Amino acid sequence: MIETIHSPADIKGFDTAQLNALAAEIRRGLMNRLSRRGGHFGPNFGIVEATIALHYVFDSPKDKIVFDVSHQCYTHKILTGRAAAFFDDAHFGDVSGYTNPEESPHDFFNVGHTSTSVSLACGLAKSRDLKGESCNVIAVIGDGSLSGGEALEGLDYAAELGSNLIIVVNDNDMSIAENHGGLYRNLRELRESGGKAPCNLFRAMGLDYRFVADGNDPAALIEAFAAVKDTDRPTVVHIVTQKGKGYAPAETERESWHWHSPFDPETGQSPAQGGENYSALTCGFLLRKMKADRRVIAMAAAVPVNIGFTPEKRREAGAQFIDVGIAEEHAVAMASGIARGGGKPVFATHSSFFQRTYDQISQDLCINSSPATLLVNTASVFGMNDITHLGIFDIAMMSNIPNLVYLAPTNCEEYFAMLDWSIEQDRHPVAVRIPCGDVVHTDRPVDTDYSELNRYQVTQQGAGTAILALGNFFGIGEALARLIEEKTGTAPTLINPRYITGLDEPLLEQLKSGHSAVITLEDGILDGGFGEKIARYYGAAEMKVYNYGLKKEFLDRYAAEDVLRANHLTPEQIFSDIF
Amino acid sequence: MIETIHSPADIKGFDTAQLNALAAEIRRGLMNRLSRRGGHFGPNFGIVEATIALHYVFDSPKDKIVFDVSHQCYTHKILTGRAAAFFDDAHFGDVSGYTNPEESPHDFFNVGHTSTSVSLACGLAKSRDLKGESCNVIAVIGDGSLSGGEALEGLDYAAELGSNLIIVVNDNDMSIAENHGGLYRNLRELRESGGKAPCNLFRAMGLDYRFVADGNDPAALIEAFAAVKDTDRPTVVHIVTQKGKGYAPAETERESWHWHSPFDPETGQSPAQGGENYSALTCGFLLRKMKADRRVIAMAAAVPVNIGFTPEKRREAGAQFIDVGIAEEHAVAMASGIARGGGKPVFATHSSFFQRTYDQISQDLCINSSPATLLVNTASVFGMNDITHLGIFDIAMMSNIPNLVYLAPTNCEEYFAMLDWSIEQDRHPVAVRIPCGDVVHTDRPVDTDYSELNRYQVTQQGAGTAILALGNFFGIGEALARLIEEKTGTAPTLINPRYITGLDEPLLEQLKSGHSAVITLEDGILDGGFGEKIARYYGAAEMKVYNYGLKKEFLDRYAAEDVLRANHLTPEQIFSDIF
Repeated sequence: MIETIHSPADIKGFDTAQLNALAAEIRRGLMNRLSRRGGHFGPNFGIVEATIALHYVFDSPKDKIVFDVSHQCYTHKILTGRAAAFFDDAHFGDVSGYTNPEESPHDFFNVGHTSTSVSLACGLAKSRDLKGESCNVIAVIGDGSLSGGEALEGLDYAAELGSNLIIVVNDNDMSIAENHGGLYRNLRELRESGGKAPCNLFRAMGLDYRFVADGNDPAALIEAFAAVKDTDRPTVVHIVTQKGKGYAPAETERESWHWHSPFDPETGQSPAQGGENYSALTCGFLLRKMKADRRVIAMAAAVPVNIGFTPEKRREAGAQFIDVGIAEEHAVAMASGIARGGGKPVFATHSSFFQRTYDQISQDLCINSSPATLLVNTASVFGMNDITHLGIFDIAMMSNIPNLVYLAPTNCEEYFAMLDWSIEQDRHPVAVRIPCGDVVHTDRPVDTDYSELNRYQVTQQGAGTAILALGNFFGIGEALARLIEEKTGTAPTLINPRYITGLDEPLLEQLKSGHSAVITLEDGILDGGFGEKIARYYGAAEMKVYNYGLKKEFLDRYAAEDVLRANHLTPEQIFSDIF
Repeated sequence: MIETIHSPADIKGFDTAQLNALAAEIRRGLMNRLSRRGGHFGPNFGIVEATIALHYVFDSPKDKIVFDVSHQCYTHKILTGRAAAFFDDAHFGDVSGYTNPEESPHDFFNVGHTSTSVSLACGLAKSRDLKGESCNVIAVIGDGSLSGGEALEGLDYAAELGSNLIIVVNDNDMSIAENHGGLYRNLRELRESGGKAPCNLFRAMGLDYRFVADGNDPAALIEAFAAVKDTDRPTVVHIVTQKGKGYAPAETERESWHWHSPFDPETGQSPAQGGENYSALTCGFLLRKMKADRRVIAMAAAVPVNIGFTPEKRREAGAQFIDVGIAEEHAVAMASGIARGGGKPVFATHSSFFQRTYDQISQDLCINSSPATLLVNTASVFGMNDITHLGIFDIAMMSNIPNLVYLAPTNCEEYFAMLDWSIEQDRHPVAVRIPCGDVVHTDRPVDTDYSELNRYQVTQQGAGTAILALGNFFGIGEALARLIEEKTGTAPTLINPRYITGLDEPLLEQLKSGHSAVITLEDGILDGGFGEKIARYYGAAEMKVYNYGLKKEFLDRYAAEDVLRANHLTPEQIFSDIF
């Protein structure tokens, strides 16, 4: 059947039996890709029927469907000419895991962060109205994304549009983990009352509202979508779906099947992950701190497992762990409040999700010098590699905010020493980059006190050249130091800067004697980063400064080694550039 | 009466007559300060009684009151030992216009941006609970602030606290301008139904709810606050107040009296502002563009007048002007959607308010290369000078985001040429720094096409030294160039970089011949800024690089000339530093 579908027009005449058969066939394609490549399992399995119904009723791409996060867009891709990427292993690489205008005219935005669809769709609708055109604009947003400030701002504004906008709320009663926030009580009331509860978040936001009890029933969905098609008012269609629908392990273990690595479809099992990892180590460390001090509190924003807080560990932490849901702005402001009140908050999320909360880091946290700790995860070229989830911008974004102490550990022992110091001190907002990649241990002495700010650590005193190798790139610095010594006979000085947010001016001054060149290495873009501050410091001095890091660009689905080479970041490349 | 009030304890025994007399006396103090110094008139006049009632019922600072924005905290300051700053002109300088923990133990945070109070208060409440203490935590938030994502995230999360938190919603049916968003229809329903409408935004967020019809009646307020004191659940008290209460001009012209410059209390008139200003010029320019092209749309987020869109001009623009309310995240994402749909959006707000939307600039706008225009206002050391409203961080924040073209005009003609180019091009997201200060005109030729990116303009070809003077600091560059020529006999090269976001490498390469030093000047912090990129470029070259700009720090209530001197930014200081 899939071979006969080249565009959404090809499903328009289908009867219910055909639609159901199509759904089953699509799930086979999803299973084929997801079991071999991994990806967002639960969201895609849950929304098969709703996507079919959308394409049955609306005329994409004239009618414009904007998927929130767009991690649930696989069925949409299958129905819009990209089925091979799901059914034919050789074509897996043809598509990204998100909507992508470069792939298809049916995709309008490259997205991957949550809570953006309503605002983006409002923009499409406004343009349509200004140009005097007519079409349907549809935002598809999951219940988990509703707690994000951008989504709530968008829902609130949508009522002002006064023209066609259809917001499909795909309610599977789950965020990535369980939902958090008072609005989810209202969604439950709406589900339990068949949409009839008089208190209704969407109506309170000024929107029309319609309810579909079984969002996995194509006929019911088609009826509801047809009823709102060409509406002249912003309207919510609240559909209740089953996350992971059609695969028993995903229907029951919804959190672990939200995103899943490759697995055996028969058993649902993935190959065992051996060895240590920073997530589990971080969770263990924080639980020990919590038990010793009731004021210590770990905070997540919808991705608790990224610092090891599985459901079991969350229960163990009790009231000392909170997941605020998708609400990073709230998380940072609340962390500032907790710290101001004498608590010891540690808020962790991914590097690219911290982008949501620049203003709160600056205003709520740093102006107030609240001693909260931010743990910045997957902050590395070795982190996530989708264009929307890059971990290479946080140094430029965060390190230029006054009062913040941003630390870059080079190994496991240093990481936990920094984290421990941060939790126990009460003077500074502190961010720590969680090391990325395999867990690296050290025999080098590690300081336990970081309160004298901006003191870099000289790990090898040499001459001629000084290497300042920050955080995750310290290993490159070590290898480069060995190479320089081997090739030139003179060992360079090797320095672990530790502090991203300030210069060790006495040390930089000392380096002027006996050194003619400084090489900086950082795991992030060069623009606005650490190395440029060193270049500024030596701007008028005789010292030559070579900054190594990444080009300012949006990378997508890359292999880290390719990016390192493209940026001349191998020790051999650096050596041959300079010597 | 005021002389007898040293702390909130001194008003506890007051009867209704005394409370009313106190309110009248406080308004005299407010009028004294506001008419002479200017400030947030409407918010402070409207909340006198509610603040008195809060301090009558609760025991500050054991009970903790967190004011949103805190531009309405003047009565709170008067009642907590800081009355002199309102009644005695000699003491005006003792207090800031916002809450400030350095002034008083009754103030918990230094705030100034909207929509933060609920999250900050959640943090104080959580700390209280972790430590096993008991007190009331009260957030006071205006209706205008409710549309902000951070506030909506906070309201949604608050229901999860499960302990004491009192959220006073001060509803005066106004934002800075009129409110925008669907939730304001719900607030109206609640006002009109005496709080009894079954559809209730706050209940939909999982919160308890109580309504006070006359929020300027001390007795009604005291009754309501006493009823929720020591509650064990997050509870909203929705009070309806009159913005500008007690001063007829402010009660009727609520938008222009939200913030007001010094005025004559008898007439309500301020001294006339003579001459041109960039706000009115920007509005006029955009209106002309709109009339020529229906796709052009101006967007504001609650501060329309900052680009000259007075109520009259908004009516003139019709559907081509939108104010999204306090919702900067939505504004940028919607602008991206409008641009994707073929519209030509121009979104303007203050430099420090763009901080709210770092992620949307990066993800929604720049990853998608949507050709929207951002106008960054008061982006300068000459801009607003409160710690929470500084315009010196936007270069560091925005210029390191890939794909964004960030332009710094040096005068009026260049500004409008850049803006015009940005609106008409369809390839790049573009931000333009609105020049700050007096309108500067030029006879120099101004380019109309900026599509060949990163081409700096040499305005004077000289030798020895090259000055790269960015945007608002071009005038300093010109003065420095004259001084160097005068003192050394050799005219330096003077360059207007125009593009903040990229290097003119061919030009920088050329400068190596005939120049031994480059001086950069930028109106913003040095860290993460423009000059450091020049320093990096010349890191290994013979060129000396001197970066001039501002130190990375939170300034507060400063005189620009002091800050310039402290950062060695006068031409004389720079000359004596280098020559």
